[in-house]
Amino acid sequence: MEYPAGEFGLIQRFRDRAKLGSGVRVGIGDDCAVLAATHGCETLVTTDMLMDGRHFRLDEAGPVAVGYKSLAVSLSDIAAMAGKPTAAFVAVALPRADAETLALGLLEGMTALANQFEVTLAGGDTNAWDGPLVICVTVLGTTVPPGPVMRTGARPGDRIFVTGPLGGSLLGRHLRPIPRVTEALALHEAVSLRAMIDVSDGLASDLTHILEESGNLGATLDANAIPIHDDAARISGHDGRSSLDHALNDGEDFELCFVVSHADADRLIEPRDGFSYLRHIGRIDAEPGIRLALGDGRTDLIQPRGFDHLRSHGS
Amino acid sequence: MEYPAGEFGLIQRFRDRAKLGSGVRVGIGDDCAVLAATHGCETLVTTDMLMDGRHFRLDEAGPVAVGYKSLAVSLSDIAAMAGKPTAAFVAVALPRADAETLALGLLEGMTALANQFEVTLAGGDTNAWDGPLVICVTVLGTTVPPGPVMRTGARPGDRIFVTGPLGGSLLGRHLRPIPRVTEALALHEAVSLRAMIDVSDGLASDLTHILEESGNLGATLDANAIPIHDDAARISGHDGRSSLDHALNDGEDFELCFVVSHADADRLIEPRDGFSYLRHIGRIDAEPGIRLALGDGRTDLIQPRGFDHLRSHGS
Repeated sequence: MEYPAGEFGLIQRFRDRAKLGSGVRVGIGDDCAVLAATHGCETLVTTDMLMDGRHFRLDEAGPVAVGYKSLAVSLSDIAAMAGKPTAAFVAVALPRADAETLALGLLEGMTALANQFEVTLAGGDTNAWDGPLVICVTVLGTTVPPGPVMRTGARPGDRIFVTGPLGGSLLGRHLRPIPRVTEALALHEAVSLRAMIDVSDGLASDLTHILEESGNLGATLDANAIPIHDDAARISGHDGRSSLDHALNDGEDFELCFVVSHADADRLIEPRDGFSYLRHIGRIDAEPGIRLALGDGRTDLIQPRGFDHLRSHGS
Repeated sequence: MEYPAGEFGLIQRFRDRAKLGSGVRVGIGDDCAVLAATHGCETLVTTDMLMDGRHFRLDEAGPVAVGYKSLAVSLSDIAAMAGKPTAAFVAVALPRADAETLALGLLEGMTALANQFEVTLAGGDTNAWDGPLVICVTVLGTTVPPGPVMRTGARPGDRIFVTGPLGGSLLGRHLRPIPRVTEALALHEAVSLRAMIDVSDGLASDLTHILEESGNLGATLDANAIPIHDDAARISGHDGRSSLDHALNDGEDFELCFVVSHADADRLIEPRDGFSYLRHIGRIDAEPGIRLALGDGRTDLIQPRGFDHLRSHGS
């Protein structure tokens, strides 16, 4: 099919590519999208804005990778509530010179991921300007019984897990995170998830959110149990920071960090459960602060470097 | 209350200001917002991205006006479906030098409007960078029985209305549109709205969307009935284009253009109905194209200048 040039041709392409999922009655093309009533389930909403030079470098990563990442980070937020994503809305400010090619690349990167998780691209807003690429993705999802997993339910004695190795995402992995939607739903069915978050700012910083929101609690992490990604070791060779430091403080891993009771922890650790990718990294304490048990009896206090998006110059 | 500096203090301010409306169970502060189940109603979703230099000039308008406009344009999309807005999600890329002051100004501009329409600021994403201000607002709403008003239901013989005077919004009115949420709900209750759109790209262009989406229909507009805003007359004095041309083709009026049956039109025109602000401007034809009846028996064919957001350099 031939499409006309310009915005209307582009919208038509988006429209044709976006197959409507079961929860979406009206997608692209009217003033609003219309999503079906949720029959008793609650609706989850998350929005993320990504800017060239900050969350990605368009000239290095290319539009397909940027489109992928933009959707993946929002799907990761839905996963962190143990929800099921349904629809995505994409607003873009495209550099004018290359707007259409760029938009098609972004769309390609998003479409594969959207299809994989049965998410409908249900609407958006297309703009061009003289500035750098900005892309804002809003994803809606539905909660899954017995309800969304907040950051608030951790209790002293609970166990802390992560879904995969951490650190060094800057070497490229931050562009292609796998949102842990499937894993979260499987865990939500298997055990009672008391608190969960996705690791976007760094394990220490994100775990601190759980501890604070659950009522000023603390945690003890087992230094030898924290899964360190090969990339953390590689980056450590360049900058002299330990690979454990990278695993604790690098952002954009997009693994899940979650908390369950001691009894549920035992169930997850049993090999027959198909959760062999999980790592049990520590426990919740009544005493505030995060302590790192080094294995030789010594304990370090971790100072999470809370990532301040207003002040940091990091990408 | 004292707030810490930086992103976390800012999020705390947002959180404290955002009273949770009845439809929002969890607002700012977790991975996603959680909206209550809608008990049989559908969910409306719209997203709009506004960029400095394109949709506003921050140095001229100031952050309060920009915050107001950013939310208003999305509320206008909910109005165009005759829905009730419930929650707003705001993602921003703030120029780093003045990020916090700017964010507070935007918040102030949005809060008044959100309170007026009982919309909860339920989430968002705060970033700073070296680029110009970009703000992306996503608004969710619920449909109101008998359902959302699409662009698709116009039929030959139907009548066309607008909710207020048009043209010349560039003189400043585009910064402070009143989203016609209340008017849309009153109309939805009084008559059967067959098609509706908000006038964002210009009456001729937006009416064309209704005509095309309703099955390649046409319309005849009465040149003398189209309500022309004083600003259209003022701007006409400067640029030599007629004030009617401005009323037909200027964007960002954010009035509603809607279509009802002949019988319903008669009901709306009766003075006792409290719809005296409405203007009956024409009728739907089976023949494609928009004709302008000039009153002296002559008829002009209107060429809508479809506003292409990828190619136009207009603000």
